[in-house]
Amino acid sequence: MRLGVCYYPEHWPESLWEDDARRMKALGIEQVRIAEFAWSRMEPSPGEYDWGWLDRAVDVLGNAGLQVVMCTPTATPPKWLIDRHPDILPVGADGRPRAFGSRRHYDFSSPAYFEASQRICTAVAGRYGKHPAVAYWQTDNEFGCHQTVVSYSTAAVERFREWLKARYGTVDALNRAWGTVFWSMEYRSFDEVDAPVATVTEAHPSHRLDYRRFASDEVARYNRMQVEIIRAHSPGRPIAHNFMQLFTEFDHYKVAADLDVAAWDSYPLGALEEQWFAPEVKAKWLRTGHPDFASFNHDVYRGMSKDPFWVMEQQPGPVNWASWNPAPLPGMVRLWSWEAFAHGAGCVSYFRWRQAPFAQEQMHAGLNTPDNRLDIGGEEASKVADEMRGVLAADVDADANVRAQVALVYDYEAKWLFEIHPQGADFHYPRFAFEYYSALRSLGLDVDIVSAHAPLDGYRLIVVPPLPVVPGDFAERLARSGAQVVIGPRTGSKTRDLQIPANLPPGPLASLLPLRVWRVDSLRPNVTVPVRTADTARGDARQWRDLIDLGDARASSFEVRAQFADGHPAYVKGGALHYFASFFDDALTQRLFAQAARDAGIEAEPLAEGVRVSRRGALTYVFNYGERVHTLAGIAAERFVIGSRDIEPQGVAAYRSS
Amino acid sequence: MRLGVCYYPEHWPESLWEDDARRMKALGIEQVRIAEFAWSRMEPSPGEYDWGWLDRAVDVLGNAGLQVVMCTPTATPPKWLIDRHPDILPVGADGRPRAFGSRRHYDFSSPAYFEASQRICTAVAGRYGKHPAVAYWQTDNEFGCHQTVVSYSTAAVERFREWLKARYGTVDALNRAWGTVFWSMEYRSFDEVDAPVATVTEAHPSHRLDYRRFASDEVARYNRMQVEIIRAHSPGRPIAHNFMQLFTEFDHYKVAADLDVAAWDSYPLGALEEQWFAPEVKAKWLRTGHPDFASFNHDVYRGMSKDPFWVMEQQPGPVNWASWNPAPLPGMVRLWSWEAFAHGAGCVSYFRWRQAPFAQEQMHAGLNTPDNRLDIGGEEASKVADEMRGVLAADVDADANVRAQVALVYDYEAKWLFEIHPQGADFHYPRFAFEYYSALRSLGLDVDIVSAHAPLDGYRLIVVPPLPVVPGDFAERLARSGAQVVIGPRTGSKTRDLQIPANLPPGPLASLLPLRVWRVDSLRPNVTVPVRTADTARGDARQWRDLIDLGDARASSFEVRAQFADGHPAYVKGGALHYFASFFDDALTQRLFAQAARDAGIEAEPLAEGVRVSRRGALTYVFNYGERVHTLAGIAAERFVIGSRDIEPQGVAAYRSS
Amino acid sequence: MRLGVCYYPEHWPESLWEDDARRMKALGIEQVRIAEFAWSRMEPSPGEYDWGWLDRAVDVLGNAGLQVVMCTPTATPPKWLIDRHPDILPVGADGRPRAFGSRRHYDFSSPAYFEASQRICTAVAGRYGKHPAVAYWQTDNEFGCHQTVVSYSTAAVERFREWLKARYGTVDALNRAWGTVFWSMEYRSFDEVDAPVATVTEAHPSHRLDYRRFASDEVARYNRMQVEIIRAHSPGRPIAHNFMQLFTEFDHYKVAADLDVAAWDSYPLGALEEQWFAPEVKAKWLRTGHPDFASFNHDVYRGMSKDPFWVMEQQPGPVNWASWNPAPLPGMVRLWSWEAFAHGAGCVSYFRWRQAPFAQEQMHAGLNTPDNRLDIGGEEASKVADEMRGVLAADVDADANVRAQVALVYDYEAKWLFEIHPQGADFHYPRFAFEYYSALRSLGLDVDIVSAHAPLDGYRLIVVPPLPVVPGDFAERLARSGAQVVIGPRTGSKTRDLQIPANLPPGPLASLLPLRVWRVDSLRPNVTVPVRTADTARGDARQWRDLIDLGDARASSFEVRAQFADGHPAYVKGGALHYFASFFDDALTQRLFAQAARDAGIEAEPLAEGVRVSRRGALTYVFNYGERVHTLAGIAAERFVIGSRDIEPQGVAAYRSS
Repeated sequence: MRLGVCYYPEHWPESLWEDDARRMKALGIEQVRIAEFAWSRMEPSPGEYDWGWLDRAVDVLGNAGLQVVMCTPTATPPKWLIDRHPDILPVGADGRPRAFGSRRHYDFSSPAYFEASQRICTAVAGRYGKHPAVAYWQTDNEFGCHQTVVSYSTAAVERFREWLKARYGTVDALNRAWGTVFWSMEYRSFDEVDAPVATVTEAHPSHRLDYRRFASDEVARYNRMQVEIIRAHSPGRPIAHNFMQLFTEFDHYKVAADLDVAAWDSYPLGALEEQWFAPEVKAKWLRTGHPDFASFNHDVYRGMSKDPFWVMEQQPGPVNWASWNPAPLPGMVRLWSWEAFAHGAGCVSYFRWRQAPFAQEQMHAGLNTPDNRLDIGGEEASKVADEMRGVLAADVDADANVRAQVALVYDYEAKWLFEIHPQGADFHYPRFAFEYYSALRSLGLDVDIVSAHAPLDGYRLIVVPPLPVVPGDFAERLARSGAQVVIGPRTGSKTRDLQIPANLPPGPLASLLPLRVWRVDSLRPNVTVPVRTADTARGDARQWRDLIDLGDARASSFEVRAQFADGHPAYVKGGALHYFASFFDDALTQRLFAQAARDAGIEAEPLAEGVRVSRRGALTYVFNYGERVHTLAGIAAERFVIGSRDIEPQGVAAYRSS
Repeated sequence: MRLGVCYYPEHWPESLWEDDARRMKALGIEQVRIAEFAWSRMEPSPGEYDWGWLDRAVDVLGNAGLQVVMCTPTATPPKWLIDRHPDILPVGADGRPRAFGSRRHYDFSSPAYFEASQRICTAVAGRYGKHPAVAYWQTDNEFGCHQTVVSYSTAAVERFREWLKARYGTVDALNRAWGTVFWSMEYRSFDEVDAPVATVTEAHPSHRLDYRRFASDEVARYNRMQVEIIRAHSPGRPIAHNFMQLFTEFDHYKVAADLDVAAWDSYPLGALEEQWFAPEVKAKWLRTGHPDFASFNHDVYRGMSKDPFWVMEQQPGPVNWASWNPAPLPGMVRLWSWEAFAHGAGCVSYFRWRQAPFAQEQMHAGLNTPDNRLDIGGEEASKVADEMRGVLAADVDADANVRAQVALVYDYEAKWLFEIHPQGADFHYPRFAFEYYSALRSLGLDVDIVSAHAPLDGYRLIVVPPLPVVPGDFAERLARSGAQVVIGPRTGSKTRDLQIPANLPPGPLASLLPLRVWRVDSLRPNVTVPVRTADTARGDARQWRDLIDLGDARASSFEVRAQFADGHPAYVKGGALHYFASFFDDALTQRLFAQAARDAGIEAEPLAEGVRVSRRGALTYVFNYGERVHTLAGIAAERFVIGSRDIEPQGVAAYRSS
Repeated sequence: MRLGVCYYPEHWPESLWEDDARRMKALGIEQVRIAEFAWSRMEPSPGEYDWGWLDRAVDVLGNAGLQVVMCTPTATPPKWLIDRHPDILPVGADGRPRAFGSRRHYDFSSPAYFEASQRICTAVAGRYGKHPAVAYWQTDNEFGCHQTVVSYSTAAVERFREWLKARYGTVDALNRAWGTVFWSMEYRSFDEVDAPVATVTEAHPSHRLDYRRFASDEVARYNRMQVEIIRAHSPGRPIAHNFMQLFTEFDHYKVAADLDVAAWDSYPLGALEEQWFAPEVKAKWLRTGHPDFASFNHDVYRGMSKDPFWVMEQQPGPVNWASWNPAPLPGMVRLWSWEAFAHGAGCVSYFRWRQAPFAQEQMHAGLNTPDNRLDIGGEEASKVADEMRGVLAADVDADANVRAQVALVYDYEAKWLFEIHPQGADFHYPRFAFEYYSALRSLGLDVDIVSAHAPLDGYRLIVVPPLPVVPGDFAERLARSGAQVVIGPRTGSKTRDLQIPANLPPGPLASLLPLRVWRVDSLRPNVTVPVRTADTARGDARQWRDLIDLGDARASSFEVRAQFADGHPAYVKGGALHYFASFFDDALTQRLFAQAARDAGIEAEPLAEGVRVSRRGALTYVFNYGERVHTLAGIAAERFVIGSRDIEPQGVAAYRSS
């Protein structure tokens, strides 16, 4: 549990460096990330390296007692490299290369870029791999940012054909798997297959899904190349990558599998503005972020990180990149920092030390203002550092990795599949996963977020947002876990090849829950369908309905917990499986999850508005995103490690279990 | 009057075919459309045909007593053909060829594709032209789907220049007709004329209109080529094309002129979602479709079909291609089927026999589910087949082609012209035509929809939605008909060359109605203008106003039936001509049409909400799109052929005239 | 003070010309603009000129006693020229040349077009430069219309590199000025710099701003070339260009500096529809235009014109080019004409003499209808001509150029900068400048609109809408003026290179107002922040907040006139400088400006709804845009030159000062 910061010595006069390092240390910062955009300074001209400045910067930081997170600079290839190899540029869906002049202007499939990356990574890792101040590594920066995973270049298409050969073996197998007979789309060889783009009407969904899988695999391949070079030159130093919250164009699990630390960049206000939330929700949480957004992502990356996950970039004030960029309320930088630790973060690293006065991000706040005064975010970071001194090692380490009782299955392929094949224009997978998570959190529950391929033993409640393709052993793992399992609509609705299962949805899960989804019904945003539960609660269904055939013989083995107004089942329980045939309004969703939790033997009561609770190690943390003071009854004053029983808005408290 | 189905033997194991054919027959189906997307199976490699599977499929269907509608497979040229002739691909407005990978990826002007189409059509027609099971033909599939009529290829531009030469003779005539002097757009030769695309600001409207006319003519030329080949090889078999409702990029009348059967593909729910209707209208008719949408199109295609028109594809359940795809209410498949027959359909053919589990349309329902159980649409089709047995030949044939008393003039060029030259951003021609139609239908009137070039004798009321270019003999035909004629705003507002008539609008119609539209006024959506009728009814005008000069001498010969709040005439009657100077709210529109109908000696009373009536042959059909039981008073029980006097929501009744 | 008209003899039969000229003269028109789109008639084929028709047209007009404004025809190069030099076409942000077929299809940086323009300008100026009927010239037509200033052609990029060399001298200086180190965007030579387009995410803002400055300079260079040719061939004839209201892609001040007359094209209804106004505002002023829109632009162009500015094109009725095109209320053409004169116009010239029946603008009204009857706009122009006869020379000339007491600083670069670097998606500079102007005008104040580089002496109140880059001597000029100065948020927030000033905003203005904007806060449209003034008025802030640090020592030297609900200062006054830290609702903005005016010793009371007052020469003009009669108390009847004390809606009155 430590604080860090992102620092760009190349942006500032060398005369400032020592003072910067000193002030970092004094503020309580322990690790400093550097150099992820510095290629043009490391290698100003082809093959001519300039390490002097970076040697001095690393020394200054090391001498101040700071640990360096050294980065490979591959997110920003310099102009001379692009001019030598224009085929490095990724190609957009419009067929046009995306130009030099910002960042991430490279194609993961470009052979020239792969080679150039090997060269610069070897150079950096060779130079700093064993430097005593260099404690960690970061590969590249924010894979997937700015929609850069999917490219339509010649190089990508050529590699895609190889990828298809490896997957299908023969082109006949591909034709069968995709069902290309449908519109005379049959191929006679892999070389006839192009990228699924610019077609007259929608391209074949299986073709599109495979292209997305391929593009995701290219990211993993590229990252793995960097990891292997670093490991060779810098043994024993953990390697991280900073994932970007909901940038889901690639499978984060697959990239994280090669890393030691899954880090992520947490911008709660920018994310609120840019994501799916309705305008009134954006206004409501304008200056705090949504109470479940950061913690959702903490739980995502905790689930895939070998070492404790990090927040590599923590929003310290207003940012520059959202459509609107409000200032956080005082207290929020502290709250967000503690919330990360409460979810198991090993490090919270602020972005950036000092606001830069130039270029694209000059309106992005730092811990210090451009005129080098400590900004409010810096003051709050300092307060966190002070408070950390009151936390004992025993509070933190004891049970840091103990599982929650509730698991939520989160899947990247599901996002791609529903994007390609939505059937209802606003069928947005991350939203549904988030809404389930949010309902659970509003009931005071801790949640582990896990892959569909993860072991499930030990959980008491497993929640599965719409998971169209279920792994072959999923039903078996669910059954073996002994948990209550809540499954969202469209789960098991597709085979791996994006076909409808022969037995109709839920496909392989019918072995556990022998029903049959015989029809679906997608609903436009101004339509809802009334729902009534068996215990006479009422609510509304929205967006989607699975129409369920319970079968004649077996109907008695099901409990229909809710019905739509036209009599179709809205929520069916069979054994330990709970099938939600739709999405429900927030209140009804919360109510149904509370009931399922009770079935699982978990106590679940709604928390006050804006209040969230997280348990980790020996501590229980309480966060107040709301507008009113929240008072904790029955906790003795001496148990509080942070704060006290009266938690102000934007306040935090943490107390020991006993 | 018979039922049909669309079937894709190539999508299913051959082992299923016989059972499929048997079940079709048992269900009451008589005709089966096949092969419109099967080119890659007919000719898997260049010049290598494989007819075996198709021979067997035709035999299986024929042996089961089914009639085959054989299709040319030109909507989906295979990959090998595209790779050999990349210039087959149509070019979008962005200058980029539209790629292989879905359907309709061909340019109507491509010489290579014209030649390849001749070859495959000759091959199919040669093989099956005289097969005893092949009773009908379909050319291609849904011309105009996915905006594929207008292409900006080199081939298209070259043929456009020829088309212009044929139309204008000399380039000076073109310059005069278009008025290219306006912005120094004058041409010195036809070879200087390009496609009207990618210009700095709007391209010349006459240029654009001629490009649209040319593109439409290319479709007719292409279809005629197929028709001639089929007639040569398959004499006596009627030839159809399946038009797609409001895909109006080409003139359906001109294509239909070469066919025997104008068929159309009826998707009431998909159309509601994708068309101009307001969100609350889309919600209101979510699961039934708009009560006038299918019948509007029935009347359009009846009007242009030599043999009774068909519904070639009838929506059997939820579809996949709209933004949202709700399930129809139980009963609607039956209602839609009977409605088609009530408007004179020769065949209602469901799309498709069984939902495919793969490719783009896997979420499109069929009569059977993918696991081969009869779906609700299949059950309703079966019920229709049963009910058909109760209808006597005399009920149907007696007066099937007798004219309605009301004609509505519907024109494709008007759509293009107003799209190119709207003057108000939401001036959408099909909407206006539909609203006039809907007002007439809500008054219980049967309507014939006819071309502006059609004979008009025998009608008592002729309704002309905005018709900017009126044919030279239109005034004469209107006058000779003796009918009351209601004319919408902007009628006669343009010459054939898209100029303002020398005498101002209504141009040539001023011979009948000697007024002068001296100014126009387009209104944004949040503005209306109050209207008051001579009999003191009030309402609102919207979207458009023609400001009318009645002239000094003749003012007394006009009756001003309604005025705008600022005193300008809103509705003027002169002789038998009624001029609507604006669009009115629904209630006022209905009221004004009722009055005009009474002037024409036609009884017209508003029907109950959601109820529609159609008379054909000896039968009167009543359809209930509404939410309440509708009861028919005064019809003796024995007169009912279908249903009874109490018509449930989504119900149908039909009774004999006496 | 005279009337003019735009006339296109080439559009009409020569037989009409004499009658047209006679009727113009009879109506009271004195000057006639011709030939700006007539290149294809002047030079029908390369090098073959045809002057006959134009000679005759000029003679006809001259013989009727009309003065000709002769135009260069460069806005519409003919097809043969484009076919010879396709590189004349400008290139869009999509990388595609914009095609021939409308107008303005040329790249300001094209060497071929520069040369061709020199040739045709020399030819026209040589032929008509000394013709007795030719009294004035217009260069080209509406620079900037249809987004044609910024081109991404090879020619533009090459000239941009030269422009950068001239600005920065060395590429190192450029790298420092822009801060290219940020994302490894460093350049090794000017030849590595491309256009800032098609980048993966936003291109560098300094790069973008310089590209916009360069593109603007190209327009000035091109116009200067034309001016020099005309001056050489037609000495003594004033040269104008017709600017287009809010087409702000180039710096109008820089182009006007080479002209004698800054003219503009006034389309109050089209502008209302196309600009930023909310739908309900568009509905409210549907048929009058916003009461401050035309006058804002009059004041803009008066401020930059050496001779009295002109309205070169005055809307005479409905136009064709807005999304919706309503008809103006009767009286508005007269009102708009008088309003222009009230703001100092030398000429109001109507567009166009007669509505053309063909081509793109056939739905654009003229003074006459296409069937050559005088339209209502023509009648009102005639009335204005009559009324002008009652205005004495003494009324007009006496003090025509006397300054207003209030100056508003208006800047084109600010528009580009905030467009490139908004920080809040709807931060639209012209809107803010207009809202300040509108608040001042609603208080009955006359306003001069001036450049940030203009002398400021003599004003009592200077209003500065957000001006990010303040000139080096701006603070000094403000101080020297002795005026009260109201400064909008974000003023002084950027250096010339688009960096944050070292002392933070307001940068150089801190010498006058020593505060420090330490944080900003951009607000989405559905969020406001309550504001309370020191005198307890309440209102709302919106869109933006500067968070101000008043400093410890100096706080007492400031007066905090308003605070946000969270206690931050919303409006601070220090000495004569008033800093608005946000945008306020209309009522509060008006109230705060009234208070500031009183501080400046200017009387300022709110006018009645829709009423506006302008003083010029010896006359006070009152305009009624509202819906009720407005009565002027206390003005003796004999003082009225136009109208009387009761001003009807859409009415005008003017009375002598005494």
